[in-house]
Amino acid sequence: MVDILSLLKGNCLVAQSGGPTTVINSSAFGVIKEYMDKREKEKILIGINGIEGILNNQIYDADKLSMEELGIMRYLPSAAMGSCRYKLKNIEDSSQEYEKIFSLFKTNNIKYFFYIGGNDSMDAAKKLCDYAKAINFDISIIGVPKTIDNDLVETDHCPGFPSTAKYVCNTAMELWMDTNTYNTSSIMVMEVMGRDAGWIAASSGLIKETIKDVNQLIYLPEIPFTAEKFLKDVEHKLNNDGKLLVVTSEGLKNSSGNYINSETSCIEMDQFGHKQLGGIGKYLQTLIKQNIEKKVKLIELGVSQRCAMHCASKTDLDEAELVGRDSVKYAIQGNTGFMVALARIKSDEYKCSTKLVELKMVCNAVKEVPKDFINRDGFSINKKMIDYVSPLIVGEINNFDKNGLLKYIDIKKSLERNNVKL
Amino acid sequence: MVDILSLLKGNCLVAQSGGPTTVINSSAFGVIKEYMDKREKEKILIGINGIEGILNNQIYDADKLSMEELGIMRYLPSAAMGSCRYKLKNIEDSSQEYEKIFSLFKTNNIKYFFYIGGNDSMDAAKKLCDYAKAINFDISIIGVPKTIDNDLVETDHCPGFPSTAKYVCNTAMELWMDTNTYNTSSIMVMEVMGRDAGWIAASSGLIKETIKDVNQLIYLPEIPFTAEKFLKDVEHKLNNDGKLLVVTSEGLKNSSGNYINSETSCIEMDQFGHKQLGGIGKYLQTLIKQNIEKKVKLIELGVSQRCAMHCASKTDLDEAELVGRDSVKYAIQGNTGFMVALARIKSDEYKCSTKLVELKMVCNAVKEVPKDFINRDGFSINKKMIDYVSPLIVGEINNFDKNGLLKYIDIKKSLERNNVKL
Repeated sequence: MVDILSLLKGNCLVAQSGGPTTVINSSAFGVIKEYMDKREKEKILIGINGIEGILNNQIYDADKLSMEELGIMRYLPSAAMGSCRYKLKNIEDSSQEYEKIFSLFKTNNIKYFFYIGGNDSMDAAKKLCDYAKAINFDISIIGVPKTIDNDLVETDHCPGFPSTAKYVCNTAMELWMDTNTYNTSSIMVMEVMGRDAGWIAASSGLIKETIKDVNQLIYLPEIPFTAEKFLKDVEHKLNNDGKLLVVTSEGLKNSSGNYINSETSCIEMDQFGHKQLGGIGKYLQTLIKQNIEKKVKLIELGVSQRCAMHCASKTDLDEAELVGRDSVKYAIQGNTGFMVALARIKSDEYKCSTKLVELKMVCNAVKEVPKDFINRDGFSINKKMIDYVSPLIVGEINNFDKNGLLKYIDIKKSLERNNVKL
Repeated sequence: MVDILSLLKGNCLVAQSGGPTTVINSSAFGVIKEYMDKREKEKILIGINGIEGILNNQIYDADKLSMEELGIMRYLPSAAMGSCRYKLKNIEDSSQEYEKIFSLFKTNNIKYFFYIGGNDSMDAAKKLCDYAKAINFDISIIGVPKTIDNDLVETDHCPGFPSTAKYVCNTAMELWMDTNTYNTSSIMVMEVMGRDAGWIAASSGLIKETIKDVNQLIYLPEIPFTAEKFLKDVEHKLNNDGKLLVVTSEGLKNSSGNYINSETSCIEMDQFGHKQLGGIGKYLQTLIKQNIEKKVKLIELGVSQRCAMHCASKTDLDEAELVGRDSVKYAIQGNTGFMVALARIKSDEYKCSTKLVELKMVCNAVKEVPKDFINRDGFSINKKMIDYVSPLIVGEINNFDKNGLLKYIDIKKSLERNNVKL
């Protein structure tokens, strides 16, 4: 319903930033739909490729997209509007970029800006907010969280993480079943994302809820790693029937806090004789091969885990839309300089609402897996972690077309085709 | 309905062999259910870990599994009954193993043997069949096809391949969307299975049906590979916007028919200074990095692609059950020494029935991707390939439990727990 007298003070701009997730487009959909529901004649504008594209005037009118296109976009993995890894300069160093952006805000009467992203994007949103205050520019700037790493502080969890956790858990289950194919020893090393926080790897511990006797070792950046302890763990665990699933975060650190990957132990030579930084999974595989057992398979899930819409969590998709929609509500209420966080409601049934968190609290902070979520052995998780992650992966959607392929649309091309660049 | 007078001549044994697939358990389910529907008081026996387990008397009574357990088994990836890579000796070299197996057949009144597997398993089934004839032992031996590689001859396609193709296609789509995240050049190399036949890589060409402007290169074992041509292909394709998806079979060959992987070019040093056979994906990634563009990501799907039940094709699951069920029907009719093949019915709508193919026609032969399915450029597929693979990936199932994890049961442990080893 459109109010007879619009409450809105102007147009709105939404953009995506940082590494994509499976559900970042659901948040964008939430912002766009909520704004469309609330506005009278105001425009909702889409910035292509985040702040970098906005600086290049890559701004399009969302109304030129059909409702069908927006509906498909909600279920697209990756950043449908394009993303960037652009770091805004500090205002005291150079105000040139800020002047350009705010001139564009002024020209297009942009009074609401929604920036969907992770840590660095919240930092960008905060800087723009500070600049707006400094020049007394009336605009509501809200950060909409996303990151598969789940390392944003002040929010129960980050949209994007649950779908990655779901994909990783189910793939881990399938790989465990695969290791049990033959009557011979079989070790599988699975490397998942997470350089500074081990949320994704830790969530794989959930499969024990279904496969009670899974023989699994989990390694997280939060627990200092040594090759000696690792080999002891593997040897001890292999006392069973020779089947073992090792799940490791991509970033493991030694007791001094340095990445294992950056040590010489992880350097490998490529086919042309040049040194390459090897992945931690490859390193663990080689450690086992050289010391314990030759047959070790390695799966590096790589970017697949941040875009696996075919195994998304419905809870995650819905919550991603929720933070998008609530961002608009909070902005219309006049809030600025906040991130919309998820807050778990204490009740028998899992439920999340949203709350506002000051951007300055969020940027440049990392939320690690709490030590009391991890067992003393350092390679398994406990009930606290299970209770935390379990409800997040619940629910499926079917986004396949009748031909068995995911539904698809190229939002960027569709906007360009309609030639609605402002 | 049970016939008043059973038509069956005795008990039945079913076992799985070779590399597992996503749908091999659906075929086992088909055999078991069809036999249960047809039998009066005869037993249906499960051989654990294929012929290797059977040789060790690992035979269990399927009736000790509940219908619920069998229902869950139908949707399990990997070989729920365990598998083996055991090669039976030639009868002229040693008849010891054959005597052991047939003594066991006799003791347990086994008159039907269903062996679910690929090329090598069809060879084993044929050898057992030849031996039965030689000693005049009344038994019907039927091969039930499976292989993700799709390289069995005399069948339109192999159960298992469609689900792998579906997983690979949808992952390729997701990866393509991921390469389009940023406004910078982005190359993704994706290595899929297929050492001698490129069916899986070729099927990835299907994504062009949905993403019309996907910039994709596909490399198959069927087309001789040279690094020079490859680099030219990449350079030419990159003339667009710097986004490129390279899909390669794990086995690429030079013009002499030798694997590229076995050349020194694919040897890499591991972290401990030992030589390792590198994958072809890594080799292609390095070729591009060294000659054209530094930013190249690599995804090696590995065994995930043979057990991705979370992205299975319903058509595949149903056909896998069909070949299992029809195997029983053919066996009861008195046939032996055959594999049950899929035959595509020529009609507007896709349909498959089954037919019998002599085992000797199947074992030790490889079906390659026909040259007329591949375009002259050597890196893309045409309408014939698309028409062939399109209908196979249609349809989804939801095998998730309400907690968001795949349903699971350990069939082997369940049989052992019930202590029904014969």
